[in-house]
Amino acid sequence: MSEKGITKRSEDYSQWYLDVIEAADLADYGPVKGTMVIKPNGYAIWENIQQILNEKFKETGVKNAYFPLLIPESFLKREAEHVEGFAPEVAVVTQAGGKKLEEPLVIRPTSETIIYDSFSKWIKSYRDLPVLINQWANIVRWEMRTRLFLRTSEFLWQEGHTAHATHEEAQERQKMMLDVYKEFAEDYLAIPVIAGEKSESERFAGAERTYSIEAMMQDKKALQAGTSHILNKDFAESFNVKYLDQDGKEKFAWLTSWGVSTRLIGGLIMAHSDDSGLVLPPKIAPIQVVVIPVWSNETEKKPVFIRAKEIFSDLGKKFRAEIDLSDTRTGAKFYDWEKKGVPIRIEVGPRDIQTSTVIIARRDTGEKKSIKMSSLSDEVAKTLGTMQKDIFDKAKKFRDDNTFEVDGWGEFERIFAGEGGFVMANWCGSMECEKKITEKTKATIRCILFDQPMKQGKCILCGGESKQKALFAKAY
Amino acid sequence: MSEKGITKRSEDYSQWYLDVIEAADLADYGPVKGTMVIKPNGYAIWENIQQILNEKFKETGVKNAYFPLLIPESFLKREAEHVEGFAPEVAVVTQAGGKKLEEPLVIRPTSETIIYDSFSKWIKSYRDLPVLINQWANIVRWEMRTRLFLRTSEFLWQEGHTAHATHEEAQERQKMMLDVYKEFAEDYLAIPVIAGEKSESERFAGAERTYSIEAMMQDKKALQAGTSHILNKDFAESFNVKYLDQDGKEKFAWLTSWGVSTRLIGGLIMAHSDDSGLVLPPKIAPIQVVVIPVWSNETEKKPVFIRAKEIFSDLGKKFRAEIDLSDTRTGAKFYDWEKKGVPIRIEVGPRDIQTSTVIIARRDTGEKKSIKMSSLSDEVAKTLGTMQKDIFDKAKKFRDDNTFEVDGWGEFERIFAGEGGFVMANWCGSMECEKKITEKTKATIRCILFDQPMKQGKCILCGGESKQKALFAKAY
Repeated sequence: MSEKGITKRSEDYSQWYLDVIEAADLADYGPVKGTMVIKPNGYAIWENIQQILNEKFKETGVKNAYFPLLIPESFLKREAEHVEGFAPEVAVVTQAGGKKLEEPLVIRPTSETIIYDSFSKWIKSYRDLPVLINQWANIVRWEMRTRLFLRTSEFLWQEGHTAHATHEEAQERQKMMLDVYKEFAEDYLAIPVIAGEKSESERFAGAERTYSIEAMMQDKKALQAGTSHILNKDFAESFNVKYLDQDGKEKFAWLTSWGVSTRLIGGLIMAHSDDSGLVLPPKIAPIQVVVIPVWSNETEKKPVFIRAKEIFSDLGKKFRAEIDLSDTRTGAKFYDWEKKGVPIRIEVGPRDIQTSTVIIARRDTGEKKSIKMSSLSDEVAKTLGTMQKDIFDKAKKFRDDNTFEVDGWGEFERIFAGEGGFVMANWCGSMECEKKITEKTKATIRCILFDQPMKQGKCILCGGESKQKALFAKAY
Repeated sequence: MSEKGITKRSEDYSQWYLDVIEAADLADYGPVKGTMVIKPNGYAIWENIQQILNEKFKETGVKNAYFPLLIPESFLKREAEHVEGFAPEVAVVTQAGGKKLEEPLVIRPTSETIIYDSFSKWIKSYRDLPVLINQWANIVRWEMRTRLFLRTSEFLWQEGHTAHATHEEAQERQKMMLDVYKEFAEDYLAIPVIAGEKSESERFAGAERTYSIEAMMQDKKALQAGTSHILNKDFAESFNVKYLDQDGKEKFAWLTSWGVSTRLIGGLIMAHSDDSGLVLPPKIAPIQVVVIPVWSNETEKKPVFIRAKEIFSDLGKKFRAEIDLSDTRTGAKFYDWEKKGVPIRIEVGPRDIQTSTVIIARRDTGEKKSIKMSSLSDEVAKTLGTMQKDIFDKAKKFRDDNTFEVDGWGEFERIFAGEGGFVMANWCGSMECEKKITEKTKATIRCILFDQPMKQGKCILCGGESKQKALFAKAY
């Protein structure tokens, strides 16, 4: 961030993103290339994400557990597609305790292999199914091009892993967890998302099918915000995850996995923030209201402080509140809390005491109004609710305004040569067309839409028969 | 665990410990030697520990953050004592992303070095102090002899790290956090602990001073249950953690660190469990009450289920409750919940419905009584409170009965040649005597007591002048 403050989005979007992170004091790079230090303001957002998702997972019967960080290299190799996908980006431990290891160990790039090894021990009979497990963990994937929160060598995530007796039940779970993610993204992060299925080339390495939710950032690029997979039958076979069924036969279980990561924080920043810094939806904001006493001399200071503390103590019972009693000048304080994205600022000065009012200011719109002390708590609750909705609506309008249903290749190319956006277009399903489209436009298939009129159409590129509409976009 | 169930403590204490873990389904070894899979029942205990400690840390102004897993090897080497202490047990990443790394990276065996590197960037002036940070993280230390929860190659912990302007303030923080641990161990885990200072030979590698809390297990050995350190001045200098003071001079900050780990779960098991399995103090138990319908035929089953569900729904509002509606026979159910350590079992059968009563059974004492439905919730609350206290009192009595104040070497040796225990004895302070005592008895100095009559005495071994009493014990 330069001395002048936060770079404007219109000037340099990438720099703006980094400036917002710095201004809100969310994170910084670590000493090892591509690693990230998540600072208290950033980590508090992650803790809220954890708390809300934990509750939602639990409602579906999932329990938390913890599996080892270090995976024998041979485990990774048991499933052919999986090793092909992950081998290039693993970090490898070759020595420990002062000795060279007989078998190298990889730091988990994802935990299917080590968790299924446990599942194979836990599961004996159909009575043991389903197994519904989640873990919150750190993950290492050696990335070449990194960006705070969006792509780092180490990140934090949750990974759910389940085992089921039938393919149908596994499919239900896969869809259920994507729905959990969609609801969470929309209701809490205020980020509208599009749900769909990944094309073969974008599938998780070792999955039979991958679902994702895709969000639009303010530069009109897509961010994959969560995925859920049903694994290849191979996986259960490679790790011997089988059960004795009611009919007395041994059968392989069906496995799913699903995850979201600290990347969501990157999405949150890019979806809502503005040129003044971070904007956080109230439901996810670590601090929802900040109370700021405003005074110009020592005589004013005392009664204003008393009133401010009363308000803080009162609001603290219902909301995540903070009070700023520092000696910084008022304007600097406003700016400081603004760039940190606190949804509501309460200002209280000498005049407000006389009139039994306070000023309430919204972070998202900048709107300020004077309200009666007696209705403060209700007004804060109402405003937070309104903001949550308004922030979502704004993001949704932006996305909808930049989403195009396209039938002709000319228009398709023009959009991606220009300002970009989300493009819904028919696709014949061939990997060749998919690849060519990406070569020509840098847009990729984000997902094949779940919700689409199943009308026939012609592939946007080759004109061949197409039964599906896909979402195309440039992506993070 | 053999077919016969849990080994008796009196027969084989180590096997009993492992059997309890298996019977309660808490954890298992992972595929890599010394690593641990923490199963849902075990992880739920850890989540409770996290929740309670998070609250206590927060009350003292500490905020959570997250720092990278991978530390440049050179960082570890910057502080001489620190590298000497940790180098022998680190796991080293030498390749990543398919390439050999220019500088090897160690997986954090503790995070002082990487966190102080951040502190050096965060701290400019006295206004930035104190910095009060905690992280919940996984740690890798390559251990030769491992035991579930007590000593594993990877474990989970929290590590607090703080920076202060003065030595005095850092000392206060060091003591404050040890007090937090002591309170937590005694009030929640129901484990009485003795607080004191480590001798030089047992100090944290790089600490000026280390405090610890020490608990007695049922085999009369000591378990170190938490530590807090004030770091060597060297540390701040090596990592350049300095600030501009009010007097305009640059000064080095004073640093503290403090931690507890999943080892606490091992302590919890060994402090309270019995030959029937796990015993958990109510405040830390993931499930506090289990409701079990008891019926002998289908006619009885329906009304009993209805009543059991009512009770479960009612208790679930105030307590962490569970209901067992499975088709397992009643005796097996009782045994199953008993070995899992659930503090209270509620039994409800056809007769109980007629008399508007239920049976309430305590896990710790086995005591059963019939109580009126109308007073159930109050009775459960009261019983949980009583159990929490009784479990602590029992552990304390056991410890006190096995703690000896000793003046003569003959008695000292006799105790450790026999059944062992905690021995308080004068020690002259020389490392030579400390070493010899350990060679002769296998007992080590657990800590030099904070709370002791400061009377002069003679060293238990050499008879030299001694101003301090130390706690000696065999230890985990």
